[in-house]
Amino acid sequence: MSIQKTLDGVSVATSANVYFDGKCVSHGVTLADGRKCTVGVILPASLTFNTGAPEIMEGTAGSCEYRLDGESEWKRSAAGEKFNIPGNSKFEIRVSGEPYSYICHFG
Amino acid sequence: MSIQKTLDGVSVATSANVYFDGKCVSHGVTLADGRKCTVGVILPASLTFNTGAPEIMEGTAGSCEYRLDGESEWKRSAAGEKFNIPGNSKFEIRVSGEPYSYICHFG
Repeated sequence: MSIQKTLDGVSVATSANVYFDGKCVSHGVTLADGRKCTVGVILPASLTFNTGAPEIMEGTAGSCEYRLDGESEWKRSAAGEKFNIPGNSKFEIRVSGEPYSYICHFG
Repeated sequence: MSIQKTLDGVSVATSANVYFDGKCVSHGVTLADGRKCTVGVILPASLTFNTGAPEIMEGTAGSCEYRLDGESEWKRSAAGEKFNIPGNSKFEIRVSGEPYSYICHFG
């Protein structure tokens, strides 16, 4: 799977979203077709996120391990790979070493 | 001065730049006219940055205090305000409380 290095023809929000004391930072992006996503990064940490809409996490640098709600197994996802999180759910994510950069797609 | 809430018709890099253990995180942006800038955030911290090209920092959320190289005075810059840093120089910046979101223009 190839790495999506840039998002082109987009609108990017200039005010950052800061979560977990900065362990996760993102900027909102509106794609040319009107769909919204975020570009962000998770620093070395173990975090739990709640979802509203379903999310697709697409790695662009580094890697992470994640565990979906109700699952016992941790899975690894690296740059160029995606994983899906159901809506109205939660997931754990852990990063060690290099920060994990991502695009988070909604819906 | 008004706050630039979005940058439109741009290309955004999906891999984040992480400085000072995450106290500063930014994403590269290429504007429609080809000029480059970054959108980023500085968390509560006191940091020193070196410049290559001259930079213009434009606040989009929160505020900071900064001191240019060779100056004794700290100045405050808030969302909607800009300040200039000469090329091949350095500056100190300190943030307390709310993170300082910015656009960094080059050249």
